[in-house]
Amino acid sequence: MKIAVDAMGGDYAPEEVVIGAINAVKEYKLDVVLVGDETKIRKVLQDQHVKESERLSIAHASEVIEMGEHPAQAIRKKKDASIVVATRLARDGKCDAVVAPGSTGAAVAAALLGLGRIKGIERPCIATPIPSKRGITVLLDSGANSNSKPKHMVEAAIMGSHYAKYILGIEKPQIGLLNIGEEATKGNELCQQTYPLLEKLKTISFYGNVEGRDIPNGTVDVVVCDGFVGNVILKFGEGLGMFIYQLVRDAIKRSGFIAKLGAMAIYPALKSLKKQLDFTEYGGAPLLGVNGSFIICHGSSKAKAIKNAIRVAGELVEQDVTGHIRTSIEEEEVEQYDSES
Amino acid sequence: MKIAVDAMGGDYAPEEVVIGAINAVKEYKLDVVLVGDETKIRKVLQDQHVKESERLSIAHASEVIEMGEHPAQAIRKKKDASIVVATRLARDGKCDAVVAPGSTGAAVAAALLGLGRIKGIERPCIATPIPSKRGITVLLDSGANSNSKPKHMVEAAIMGSHYAKYILGIEKPQIGLLNIGEEATKGNELCQQTYPLLEKLKTISFYGNVEGRDIPNGTVDVVVCDGFVGNVILKFGEGLGMFIYQLVRDAIKRSGFIAKLGAMAIYPALKSLKKQLDFTEYGGAPLLGVNGSFIICHGSSKAKAIKNAIRVAGELVEQDVTGHIRTSIEEEEVEQYDSES
Repeated sequence: MKIAVDAMGGDYAPEEVVIGAINAVKEYKLDVVLVGDETKIRKVLQDQHVKESERLSIAHASEVIEMGEHPAQAIRKKKDASIVVATRLARDGKCDAVVAPGSTGAAVAAALLGLGRIKGIERPCIATPIPSKRGITVLLDSGANSNSKPKHMVEAAIMGSHYAKYILGIEKPQIGLLNIGEEATKGNELCQQTYPLLEKLKTISFYGNVEGRDIPNGTVDVVVCDGFVGNVILKFGEGLGMFIYQLVRDAIKRSGFIAKLGAMAIYPALKSLKKQLDFTEYGGAPLLGVNGSFIICHGSSKAKAIKNAIRVAGELVEQDVTGHIRTSIEEEEVEQYDSES
Repeated sequence: MKIAVDAMGGDYAPEEVVIGAINAVKEYKLDVVLVGDETKIRKVLQDQHVKESERLSIAHASEVIEMGEHPAQAIRKKKDASIVVATRLARDGKCDAVVAPGSTGAAVAAALLGLGRIKGIERPCIATPIPSKRGITVLLDSGANSNSKPKHMVEAAIMGSHYAKYILGIEKPQIGLLNIGEEATKGNELCQQTYPLLEKLKTISFYGNVEGRDIPNGTVDVVVCDGFVGNVILKFGEGLGMFIYQLVRDAIKRSGFIAKLGAMAIYPALKSLKKQLDFTEYGGAPLLGVNGSFIICHGSSKAKAIKNAIRVAGELVEQDVTGHIRTSIEEEEVEQYDSES
C-alpha cells in the first residue's frame, strides 16, 4: 500500500506534512511518497534524521498551487504542481491513494480532472467527520458543490453510508436529510424533492429529516446537505468553538486568584475535551465519488492531522470504499435520476 | 405605548409569559395587554399578587395554536386563537406591537395575514441577534423563507441595516453576504446573483461576502442569508453550545476532587460566560417587513426573555423601524427587482 502525499499543501508545508508522513510510516503498514520540491522535502527529512527509503520516498514536483489562484485554472495550467503530480501517481496505479492538505478547491479540481468520477456519480462530494454525542457524525457534502440537485443529494446519501459503514465501522448507518423541520413536506425545494428519493433507496437506511441541532446531538450517523450549507455550517462551528474557548479564557483571566487556581485544576479535563472536539483527530475529509481514494486535509493541518489522514487513506483503499460505492450506485440505478429537477 | 403579548405561546405559557409582562410593566414605560385564556391568565396574576390595571390588562382569546398544527391553516381556522387576537389588536391600532412566544410558523402566518407586508417587501424575514466578538451580530433571514430569491436578499439587507442602526445603535452597520468564500464570484447561484445587487444599494453599507466563521467573529454587524441556511445555522449553534457545555461538565465529573474544587472556583466566570452566550438576553427576534412591530420569541422563553422581548418591541415602535424600512425600500426602488431571477 502506497499513499501519495502533497508535501507542499497547507499552511505548515512542507515541515509538518513530512513529519506526519514519517510518523505514519512508523506506525502503520503502508508506504508514503512525498510529492513536491525535493530539495525542501529532503531538508526536512535530514532535520528529522530520517533517510529516504523504499517506504518513504520523494517524487519531485516543481510547481505549487497558491491559495489565491483559481483552482480549476491553476490545475490545468500547472501540470507539474505537487497536487497534480500526486493525483497522477494514483491515476497511473503507482500509488493507491492521495492525501491533499491545503486548498479544498484545488484538491477537488485535481481529483476530478486526474481521477475522474465513478460511473453514475455526477457530483463527488466531501465527507467531514464531526464530533458529536454519537462519537462522530458525518456531514456531507461539506463544500464540493454549492448548487446541488436532488440527484446529487441521493449520491451523497449513498456515498456517506458506505463511508460510515467501512471507515467508521457502523453496521447499518442511519442517514438524515438536513432540513428545518421533521415533516417530509418541510424545507426548501431541494429538500422537498430529495426526501421521497431517499425514501426509495434500497441500499441505505434513511432516518428522515434532521435539524441543525441533530448534528452535535448525533441523532444520525450521516447528515446529507448541499455543499453550500455544509461549508457554512463547518466554518460557523469552527468559529463558534474558538469564540467560546476565548470567552472561557477571558472570563477566567478577569477573575481572581482562586479562579485561576481552579482553572489550573480543571486543565486536564479541558484538555481531554479539546481533544474530543479536535476535528484533526479524525484524519481529514475524503472526497467521495472519484475513481480512487482521495483525502482532503484542512489547510491548518499539523503533523498529527496528516498522519491520521494517511491512515484513513489506507483504510479507504483496504476497505474498497470506492468499489462499494460503485456497486450501490449501479444497484440503485442512480443514473436514471434527472439531474435538472 | 401598548404591547400585545400572546400569553398562551411557548413551552412555559402562561406562567412565565405573564411574569415577564409583570416585570416589563414595572421596569419600562409601556403597557401590556395579555392575550389568551382569561381565567388562566388571571390565576397567574393572582398567584403573583398583581392586579389587572390600565397598564396590565387582559384580552380574552378562547383558542390556542398547538405546536403540531399546520401554521397557515390553523391561523385561518382558529379566528379566536391568542396569536390571531393579539395581531388583530395591533392591526386595529389598539396596540402598537405584538410579542409572540412559541411556534415561529404560526407567528409568521399570523403576522403576514393580520398585518400584511410593507409595500415593496415581498418576503418579511426574521432577524436574530447572535452573540459575537462584536457584541451582537444580526443574522437574517433566520427562518421565515426557505427559497429566497436575490430580491428577498436585498430586502433582508435593507431591513437588517435599519434594525442594527435603530435597535442596536450602530451608526453605519456593515452588511455581509453569507457565502463560502470572499470573492464576488464565489458561492451558489443565489449568492452570485445577490452580490451585485447589494453593491448597488445606496442606503446600506455593503461589506462583501463573509463566511460561517465571520458570524461568531463579528466581522460585520449584519449577515444576510437565505432562511433555510439561517435556520440550520441557528439550531446547529444552539446544539453545539449545549454539546460543548455538557462535555465540559462531564470532563469535570470524571476528574478528581481538585478539579471539582477548581470548577467551583471558576463557576462565577462560567456563569458570566453563559449570560454572554444567552440569546434570550437580547429579547427575541423581530419579524421585519410586516406593517407593524412584531417580535417572535423562542418556544423555550422564560420570564426574562419575555420581558426583554417586550422592551425591544417598544423600541421598534419608538424608533419607527417599520417607517425607516418603508422609506428605504421606496428609495431603492426594490419593487423593480425581478423576484423570479
